[in-house]
Formats: sequence, structure tokens, C-alpha cells
Amino acid sequence: MTKQFDISDRNRVRRVAKRGAYDHKIVFEVIDAAPIGHVAIEDKSHGGVAVIPMFHSRMEDYVIFHGATTSRLMTCLASGALVSISFAMVDGLVLAKSLFHHSMNYRSAVVFGRGQMVHHDEERLSALKSLSDKILPGRWEDARGPSEQEMKATAVVKVKIESASAKIRTGGPIDDPEDVKLPIWSGVIPVETRFTNPVADENSNGLVTPDYLAQIVSRQAATQNRP
Amino acid sequence: MTKQFDISDRNRVRRVAKRGAYDHKIVFEVIDAAPIGHVAIEDKSHGGVAVIPMFHSRMEDYVIFHGATTSRLMTCLASGALVSISFAMVDGLVLAKSLFHHSMNYRSAVVFGRGQMVHHDEERLSALKSLSDKILPGRWEDARGPSEQEMKATAVVKVKIESASAKIRTGGPIDDPEDVKLPIWSGVIPVETRFTNPVADENSNGLVTPDYLAQIVSRQAATQNRP
Repeated sequence: MTKQFDISDRNRVRRVAKRGAYDHKIVFEVIDAAPIGHVAIEDKSHGGVAVIPMFHSRMEDYVIFHGATTSRLMTCLASGALVSISFAMVDGLVLAKSLFHHSMNYRSAVVFGRGQMVHHDEERLSALKSLSDKILPGRWEDARGPSEQEMKATAVVKVKIESASAKIRTGGPIDDPEDVKLPIWSGVIPVETRFTNPVADENSNGLVTPDYLAQIVSRQAATQNRP
Repeated sequence: MTKQFDISDRNRVRRVAKRGAYDHKIVFEVIDAAPIGHVAIEDKSHGGVAVIPMFHSRMEDYVIFHGATTSRLMTCLASGALVSISFAMVDGLVLAKSLFHHSMNYRSAVVFGRGQMVHHDEERLSALKSLSDKILPGRWEDARGPSEQEMKATAVVKVKIESASAKIRTGGPIDDPEDVKLPIWSGVIPVETRFTNPVADENSNGLVTPDYLAQIVSRQAATQNRP
């Protein structure tokens, strides 16, 4: 068993507690697999909350975001206020005999932490590379690197994961014993997310599709379709 | 042009404002297409916020959720507190010549509103049917309907959409003029989410796959893969 997040009133999975996980490894796998994190912040000017979808990566126990230096969300994340981040992917529709026991297969994680601006140039570059690598390994080395001007326009923020939990459902429907013989189709419809063939733009006429790009479609096809 | 949400300091799209939309129709299409809504609430006991992924549907200008009557989130949603809900789907990776102009194609929406418990039996059934229809049209009529006991155990909440905006990106990379001739592959890798073949469980041996189920795989395949 790897390191665990402490279970507290804040991160404890309440509904169907057996699906909850606090293992760093499991939580981090969900964060890494999710294409988007939904970042919730206090919205003091309106007496409530606001939640915004953001592209993210992870380095150790930090969630990484980048944005324009002028961005309000970046400023809020850098302020050290407590934020929460939600990640979720649907892996299948679960059709039971009864409507009541219909469900979904999914992987999700909820994170609590505080952000800080990343200032050090080397760390900023590592964080930006982690975002690039998350989209497409190999791309960082191939594309035109950031200029001084571009680096100045880019804010990088890291949120320390102080508390977190994952919640994951897999498998088929769980029907009541008195329902299992009903002549109603029950089972799972898997949901698959994958890359399809890259579409070159007009500025790539005559250029060979790089290996890291050509491989991603077949690799993705092989790794998707979870149980 | 259909009805618009008023643009205020709360819902105004700040970054790349031209990608923002306030049209009811556009916002509602994003909400309907998203499999999951990420619901942010104030977490007063911890002096911050919490955001939780939830399955949802939409009826007119309400977002519908259901859960156990004992659920803390349901209680909070029913309290009338201001909440925010985020929806997002990634449609493609956008690879520019420069790392700086890398992007994603996506559809997203951010909603602000207040929840209330749905009490009236007929309205509760309509809301539950809208959730079932969102998963799989035809299923509500086929599966074993909810018992009185099951209805008692289920809380249904609706959040009135008071303010909202959508943000959508489509199309290829937008490179700086001085970069377009660089011999670096640029273009889009489309991302596709689709159902694959239904997997019957052991209680469905000998049952014919219903039409609404057989059709969904081919219909999904035809409607995915956006530009």
C-alpha cells in the first residue's frame, strides 16, 4: 500500500463509502488521466463560489495550471486561498433491471489545497513541460520553444494537494435479488475516449507526421476501453 | 438569436472573450452534451469551497440532480445557497508551431444559481425520467419502474440557472506570422467519445438486445467527431 491521504470530515467519501480511495497512487492516476480539472474558488464579490474548467498537469503532490498573467483565476489561485478541484471521467453506462439501480462506471477525484505562483524560471519551465507532456509526449522537444516575451506573459501556478479522495466504480449492475430474473436487458455500455487521425493544417503541407504523433492514435486505442 | 443570459461581472468570459457565448441555446447544448456537472458549494465548516462531480440533466432553465435523501450535497443544494456548476468536454488537441500557441478544442459552460428540493410527485418523476432519458432514451419505458420505497429514498434537486456563459473553441492552430513557415507539424488531433458494444451481464442470457440499445452505438459513432 502506498502513502495515504488522511481521512477527515473534508475528504471522506460518504455515499457508497466502499468506492472511496485515499491512496496517493490511485488519486494521482485519476488526476493524470483526467483531461480537465474543475477549479472551485470563493467568489467573494458575489457571496458565493465559482468553478471553472482548466487544463492541468501534476508534479508530485502539486496540481499545475497555467494561464495569462492578467487572468483573475490565476491571481486567485496564487493568493493561497483554499481551493477545491474536481476530476471525473465516465467509463460506462450501467443498466440494471430496475431504474433505481442504474449507475455509471467512472473514475473521479476531489482535491483540496492552496495555490502559489511559481516564480523560479527553471521550475516554471519544468511545469510548462509537464503540461506539454500531458497533452503529447515528444511535443515539447519538437515545437518552437517559448520566447522571453511569451514566458513573461504566462503565469504558472501550483496547488499543493493537502487533502484528497478518489471515487471509482467498475463492473456490472447490482440488482435486487427479486429483480434478477426479470426479462429486461441488463449490463454495461462501455464509453471510450480516444484520439482519431491527426488533421494537418495548411502550414504543414509536405511535412511528415512525426512519430510521436503517429503512434498516439494506435497507443490510445489500445489503452482505452477499461473494464 | 435566442434569449441571452445578461452579461455581468459574474459570468463575463474574460480570457479570449470572442470565444464566449451567452445565448441560452448554446449554453443549454453544452450542458446537455456534458456527461457530468462539477458542482461547487461553499464549505463553511472548513472555510473554503468543495466541488463534486455529479450526473445531471436539464429541464428548461433548471439543472437536475438526484441522490440519496441522506446526502450532504443534496441537503446543501436544497438549501438555496448560491452554487456554481462547471461542464466541459475536450474535442481536440490543437498543435501549433510554437508551444505558446498550443491549445485545445473544447465546449464548456459555467452556471450560477440556487437549488431547491423538488417535492411534487409528478415533477419528481419527470425529473427522474429526464435523467434516465439523458443516459439512454427508451430505457425509462423498458426497465422496472421505481417503487414507493425507492422514491422515498431518492432526493431530487433542481438548480435554477440564474447566470451562465459558454466558452467554445473550434478549428486549427493560430500561429504567429513569423512561425507559419517553420517545418514543424501543426494541426489538430480530434478527440472522440463514443459508446462501444453493450456487454450483457449474466442475468441477460437469452435476452434480445433492445432496439434503443442496439441503435445507440451506431448513432453515437455518427454524431461524434466534431470539427
